[in-house]
Amino acid sequence: MRLNDLPTPSLVVDVAALEHNLQTMAKALPGRRLRPHVKATKCTALAKRQAALGHTGFCCATVREMEGLAAAGLGDDLLLANETLDARRLGALEARVTVAVDSAETIDAAARGGVREVLVDVNVGLPRCGCAPEDAGRLADLARRRGLSVRGVMGYEGHVMGLATRAERKTACDAAMAKLRAAHAQVGGDVISAGGTGTFDVNDVATEIQAGSYSLMDTWYAARELPFRPAVFVWSTVISRGPAWWVCDAGLKSLGMDHGNPAIDGAKVWFCSDEHVTFAADAASASPFAAKVGDRVRVWPAHVDPTLAYHARLHLADGEDVVDVWEIDLRGW
Amino acid sequence: MRLNDLPTPSLVVDVAALEHNLQTMAKALPGRRLRPHVKATKCTALAKRQAALGHTGFCCATVREMEGLAAAGLGDDLLLANETLDARRLGALEARVTVAVDSAETIDAAARGGVREVLVDVNVGLPRCGCAPEDAGRLADLARRRGLSVRGVMGYEGHVMGLATRAERKTACDAAMAKLRAAHAQVGGDVISAGGTGTFDVNDVATEIQAGSYSLMDTWYAARELPFRPAVFVWSTVISRGPAWWVCDAGLKSLGMDHGNPAIDGAKVWFCSDEHVTFAADAASASPFAAKVGDRVRVWPAHVDPTLAYHARLHLADGEDVVDVWEIDLRGW
Repeated sequence: MRLNDLPTPSLVVDVAALEHNLQTMAKALPGRRLRPHVKATKCTALAKRQAALGHTGFCCATVREMEGLAAAGLGDDLLLANETLDARRLGALEARVTVAVDSAETIDAAARGGVREVLVDVNVGLPRCGCAPEDAGRLADLARRRGLSVRGVMGYEGHVMGLATRAERKTACDAAMAKLRAAHAQVGGDVISAGGTGTFDVNDVATEIQAGSYSLMDTWYAARELPFRPAVFVWSTVISRGPAWWVCDAGLKSLGMDHGNPAIDGAKVWFCSDEHVTFAADAASASPFAAKVGDRVRVWPAHVDPTLAYHARLHLADGEDVVDVWEIDLRGW
Repeated sequence: MRLNDLPTPSLVVDVAALEHNLQTMAKALPGRRLRPHVKATKCTALAKRQAALGHTGFCCATVREMEGLAAAGLGDDLLLANETLDARRLGALEARVTVAVDSAETIDAAARGGVREVLVDVNVGLPRCGCAPEDAGRLADLARRRGLSVRGVMGYEGHVMGLATRAERKTACDAAMAKLRAAHAQVGGDVISAGGTGTFDVNDVATEIQAGSYSLMDTWYAARELPFRPAVFVWSTVISRGPAWWVCDAGLKSLGMDHGNPAIDGAKVWFCSDEHVTFAADAASASPFAAKVGDRVRVWPAHVDPTLAYHARLHLADGEDVVDVWEIDLRGW
């Protein structure tokens, strides 16, 4: 099958770019040094590729992702890097399961739910989940009293990922990781789990890096001095042409929009509607966009995670040939 | 089942608010005066309620929505209010099918695809699909020469929907509809299809109004002097509490974000992550938000259409009781 035989919009990954990204990361963070975050891709077929490269521990944001990886035989070491009160579903899994806890309530849920191992989640600067660093030891003691094994700490420096340069990220990451190191001194355990695609090569405190976006990338991360290539796009058809613009059939239901508009080569995107992207040629571009109604166009998402969550399938393309189709099978909750 | 028995996040509709909205619209625009737009809800069960109220013609944004309505026995009069080059799938349907055309290419696709009826889509001010008003007669002639029956014109005044007051929308809608009326004079036919939830009661040119959001609503439309009630929310669990904030388990994958952050009663939403909403109590509120970890919270979406497209099911609630579950079965393309 050729790309032009796909209905549009369809989600497509360039296999050469994907392989480049997977190999680059496996070289930088071999084996268990990387704990791939499946929230970005929600695809067990892609997770199997990562496991084949040596990354056999995985990281999830939802219970559904944990269940799906366990069912796919990828349950060697699954971390729910998020808080949950719905821990009975985790306790029922045939897999090694660890869950993040940051409160008496989430510790209680883990213990009653039959989960055996936890990480104490520490707030390292992003106002989201995680306890205060000085509270981590108390929570670890509480978890141990409830019969839970405390493997160590987790702390996501999400506020660092968006900084434009590697140097800025290094400075901010060091400050965040000083907090995590202090918490770890109180908690103990072998694991310091942290990081993401934006800090994979500047975080030298974490024993394992929780990166996911690196495999497929998006325009937001592409602007941040990283060695990974944009690998995923929405394949779309030009369905209308106005006096000074084109319209293609991607839109708000095929693109995550929280990082702003997607990109089209040689074009300026004006706005997105439910099933439309309106865009004009960029006169400043070396090759300004030009097309006729019926032509296909690559639409590059600004944020990979919420883009993938809209699609049922990922089409693997080698040039213009569709060589495989992967189910995006970890969607929902 | 009770609301608290649902896993979170789950999409929930308040049946009393939904019924209020459906009845209010059916009174204002009875029978075929409303052509419900299913893009907002993507749910054949909801479409069947609308058909039972007399609205037996439907409006779609995707070929998949057309296929799903036809398969559900709702094919009396289906309009794809969008351009497509993929018209063979439409020609194969056992239903009355009409498609919007705005170019020689889309007319050719319709004719070759076995579609029999078209509307000429006219640009009435939104830079998206639609021909120039003065070009509509030429396209109608071209369509007739290709053997297509031209039922009339369509023109979506999408640039009008966001205006805050009914009076502003009336003025802007009149200007847009003057263009559509001029085009219709060149094209002929019985149908002038236009409008949406924001102009349902100010558009007095259209023979049928294409409204969809009215049934479930969102915070964006709720701010626009309309008689419809917010009916749909994401049911979520508070999973973490910080020094000055809470975190619940909705997020970028359960909420359309192009209209900005969702709302939580008595709270100010700070930001959304993939599976988190971080928010603080609103001290200016009559009842500022307060909760403990494990409590549930209603998260009100800012834009209903891309929110629905993330969810597989819509849970119908009468107070705290879940009384039915509808599949959101028209997703994908």
